[in-house]
Amino acid sequence: MYRSHNNGELRLTNKNQEVTLSGWVQKTRDKGFLIWIDLRDRYGITQLIFDEERTDKFVFKNAKTLGREFVIQITGTVIEREAKNKNIPTGEIEILVTKLTILNKSEIPPFTIEDDTDGGEDIRMKYRYLDIRRNAVRENLIFRHRVSMEVRNYLSKEGFIDVETPYLIKSTPEGARDFVVPSRMNEGQFYALPQSPQTFKQLLMVGGIDKYFQIVKCFRDEDLRADRQPEFTQIDCEMAFVEQEDILNTFENLIIHLLKKIKGVKVEKFPRMTYDYVMKTYGNDKPDIRFDMKFGKLNEVVQHKDFGVFNVAELVVGIAVPSGNKFSRKEIDRLIKWLKRPQIGALGMIYVRCNDDGTYKSSVDKFYNQEDLAKWAEITNAKKGDLICVLSGDANKVRTQLSALRMELATQLGLRDPKVFAPLWVVDFPLLEWNEETNRFHAMHHPFTSPKLEDMELLKTEPAKVRANAYDMVLNGNEIGGGSIRIHDKKTQEMMFDYLGFTKAEAEVQFGFLMNAFTYGAPPHGGIAFGLDRLVAILGGQETIRDFIAFPKNNSGRDVMIDAPAKIDTKQLKELHLKLDL
Amino acid sequence: MYRSHNNGELRLTNKNQEVTLSGWVQKTRDKGFLIWIDLRDRYGITQLIFDEERTDKFVFKNAKTLGREFVIQITGTVIEREAKNKNIPTGEIEILVTKLTILNKSEIPPFTIEDDTDGGEDIRMKYRYLDIRRNAVRENLIFRHRVSMEVRNYLSKEGFIDVETPYLIKSTPEGARDFVVPSRMNEGQFYALPQSPQTFKQLLMVGGIDKYFQIVKCFRDEDLRADRQPEFTQIDCEMAFVEQEDILNTFENLIIHLLKKIKGVKVEKFPRMTYDYVMKTYGNDKPDIRFDMKFGKLNEVVQHKDFGVFNVAELVVGIAVPSGNKFSRKEIDRLIKWLKRPQIGALGMIYVRCNDDGTYKSSVDKFYNQEDLAKWAEITNAKKGDLICVLSGDANKVRTQLSALRMELATQLGLRDPKVFAPLWVVDFPLLEWNEETNRFHAMHHPFTSPKLEDMELLKTEPAKVRANAYDMVLNGNEIGGGSIRIHDKKTQEMMFDYLGFTKAEAEVQFGFLMNAFTYGAPPHGGIAFGLDRLVAILGGQETIRDFIAFPKNNSGRDVMIDAPAKIDTKQLKELHLKLDL
Repeated sequence: MYRSHNNGELRLTNKNQEVTLSGWVQKTRDKGFLIWIDLRDRYGITQLIFDEERTDKFVFKNAKTLGREFVIQITGTVIEREAKNKNIPTGEIEILVTKLTILNKSEIPPFTIEDDTDGGEDIRMKYRYLDIRRNAVRENLIFRHRVSMEVRNYLSKEGFIDVETPYLIKSTPEGARDFVVPSRMNEGQFYALPQSPQTFKQLLMVGGIDKYFQIVKCFRDEDLRADRQPEFTQIDCEMAFVEQEDILNTFENLIIHLLKKIKGVKVEKFPRMTYDYVMKTYGNDKPDIRFDMKFGKLNEVVQHKDFGVFNVAELVVGIAVPSGNKFSRKEIDRLIKWLKRPQIGALGMIYVRCNDDGTYKSSVDKFYNQEDLAKWAEITNAKKGDLICVLSGDANKVRTQLSALRMELATQLGLRDPKVFAPLWVVDFPLLEWNEETNRFHAMHHPFTSPKLEDMELLKTEPAKVRANAYDMVLNGNEIGGGSIRIHDKKTQEMMFDYLGFTKAEAEVQFGFLMNAFTYGAPPHGGIAFGLDRLVAILGGQETIRDFIAFPKNNSGRDVMIDAPAKIDTKQLKELHLKLDL
Repeated sequence: MYRSHNNGELRLTNKNQEVTLSGWVQKTRDKGFLIWIDLRDRYGITQLIFDEERTDKFVFKNAKTLGREFVIQITGTVIEREAKNKNIPTGEIEILVTKLTILNKSEIPPFTIEDDTDGGEDIRMKYRYLDIRRNAVRENLIFRHRVSMEVRNYLSKEGFIDVETPYLIKSTPEGARDFVVPSRMNEGQFYALPQSPQTFKQLLMVGGIDKYFQIVKCFRDEDLRADRQPEFTQIDCEMAFVEQEDILNTFENLIIHLLKKIKGVKVEKFPRMTYDYVMKTYGNDKPDIRFDMKFGKLNEVVQHKDFGVFNVAELVVGIAVPSGNKFSRKEIDRLIKWLKRPQIGALGMIYVRCNDDGTYKSSVDKFYNQEDLAKWAEITNAKKGDLICVLSGDANKVRTQLSALRMELATQLGLRDPKVFAPLWVVDFPLLEWNEETNRFHAMHHPFTSPKLEDMELLKTEPAKVRANAYDMVLNGNEIGGGSIRIHDKKTQEMMFDYLGFTKAEAEVQFGFLMNAFTYGAPPHGGIAFGLDRLVAILGGQETIRDFIAFPKNNSGRDVMIDAPAKIDTKQLKELHLKLDL
């Protein structure tokens, strides 16, 4: 037996007990005749004391040899500390050690195992197993575990069945790029790793498993953007005999439950906003509504004056920055410079200071009088002391730019409080979006999403205007989940593939099994998938998903710890009927 | 809203309520003026009634058009049945339908959706979504879900943390063949899919997560034997600061908990048997101990008589078949024929009938008298009425043959009761096993398994005799879990790789990260992995794991439903820097 207790549990009530502990040497203080050691494990820290007078000579001498991160086992007596430490739960006691065994030595670690480590991202990734010893990373992993368990238990209690779907499936060119797996036993053929279990969960609905969930790894071979991983985890869910309303209520309740159980935060019913509304109001389909700064469209009050820039603009739109009038000229110039960077690409910004005395001072006073500016303030809902920021130009571009500005300002003003949770549903997404590259429509969600019945007529005339039964759950400016009511009849599915540019033969080869399944009594169904990595990060009050993944990959998709991917044997390649083509 | 209730919940207490139900048409009985329909969903069956006198004419007419597996929604009133059906929970009521909507039609399914279906294995796999509608398959999937949830909750309560390990890792030639995944972003390089998260869970131990578990998919590209799948699921566990005893107790308690919670079966402490003992006593390292028939070694009492066959044999060994004396001569001949098949390969069988009057009648009466045979009976623990079956020859071969006979006889005699659960631990496995093909030792468990300290000396002289700190959990003749205490210091691990024929460079390239991790304070640790597919099948009282997998692959590793694996685009191959080599 390596330990009678862990390092987080001994208290004054254990005084005089003989205990055995194991763990890592966190810190040594050697006063010559007295040695204190902080012994660490997953559960906490316990202070050990070696006293030249009270400790066996051999044990005392041995204690002098211990270095950082040595793994030791000790036996000793729990005694009351003279100088108590109120910052840790075991701070009232220490262990007078009588027996010491070194279980394993340690080289000096390449960075300090402390909350504030001296190790950079790269070195910590290479030695991830040491990084995990740090409180921050360990607690993130434990937090993730708690969230997963809570999700599983909640859904299970609601009658959902966890069904494992296969990982070795078939490649489909639609959507993102697949990772493929050559088959040795089926020459020249490949499996693909799932981008999501989409078709399988739909088949489970056809199979009568009317409530399905799975916490499941998914794979996308995309050029990695910051904070994307080639493998990621979804909470994947599907229900049969449901309308959109049933899905929204069910999964809203899941998130309400999580927030309450995990974070102790009570959230009311989620607001529901249409895609059209959020694009116009926040310039973004995943708005952060922890703060206001809603867009005010100013075209009507700013155009047909003498300011040519506004007159020719498709959209003139502003936001009122709370207490923004306190910004100095220099700070405003910095904002404008920030907006003009190529990443944002704005041509400039017009602004209005809302003075405390009710007057306005704008950067376009030549063209607009106080009465005009009062109208701007009204539309953007600006108050005394605010700053109105106005952008103009092509509607889509301007919305994106102003949305970026809104987020940047909120960050600067401290309005993105990670302890505040503001979820919402965005509904009525467009069914299709135009792809400039391929010069055709793509499915905005995926090709299995059903169009709204009342918009079906528009498919032939104005396909871009057709709305889908699709919805996203948004939390603090992040899309944490998305889903749709699916097509469940063969005819509509065929028509959809046709609109998406599939030939009949392509549709048949790739999705024939699904359309065939629809002919044997497929029930109406729909679902949702949450990105677990992101959800956990946001609940944890952090931005980076990598901090919540035990062994993440870097931006080139490499695991720098194990050094993967790597070359394989020629023999292996031969067995797989493959040759390199470099 | 598609339904107010499901099809398993309405009772007489709901009488006169108006309800809305959805589901599949299981069965129609049309008496002309009365139509009964069994409406089915995941939860059960509810009987609908359409009455020419009481039902709206249009609804009644529509009901006549319904075929098997049509998906319908109905509204109606709960009424008391005249002829009650005590076999189903809803058997006291039926629904007098007032409204009928056909949600989706169905072609005639290729096999009947009944407990006893007329569909063969192949057709049911192709239309697995229809197969899942059958009670048997659906209940198996729900059962699997219950087991998974119970495992997760039990381990979580015991302080285990569910940590997700990566699926895109590095290929290692040791062990079975890996599935590999070409990397597009790292030209000419490949990921591998994990055969198990072995090294990652060990790194978690180094990282201080002292109790880890994960229910995780694993992959092996092996030539498939019957009832093997290229992707399978493990309950993967690891603990730090533990000895073998801690692991055995922890996971014995998990299985005791499962048996009690899931099956209502109370099991006592598991017997522990050494590898050496079970090989000698059952001829097998995964003995079925639901029944007796232990091996009795007869060399001493049968040799040095005039029977040459026995005299030259390395091993003469017998079992006592309970009440086996009732076997006719023809039945015994059939057994001998069965033993002589090439799959078993025995040269023959000697037998002794133990008569009710205490006398013996053997097939070798020429050589052995009653006194001799009484000794055989004593050693094999045969009683009056039993049949003693004796094989002889090369020890290893004979044990395997007699073990097969033992299992066959147990099956014939009905001793393998799926409702009885007889778990045990097999401990003290050999560390190494000789591989005839490669002409060197391989790790019997895996190269990370620690040798028993007291056997270390033998490594140089008699490596085959070195025992490992390795253990298997066996249930009803199946290995359901296996694990070991791991090596946790670099020197021993290097030595082990050396014994296994790795060069220093190979060991470094493949497992350098692990050995490096061992130099930074690796704690003593060990673990176990259970095969979830097999465990669930056995708990479910069945033999075939395929019946507990939603979308299994066939024996060529194909998913016949989606038709995978399949060819991929030349463009895809090119992006992956690969060419086919057929």
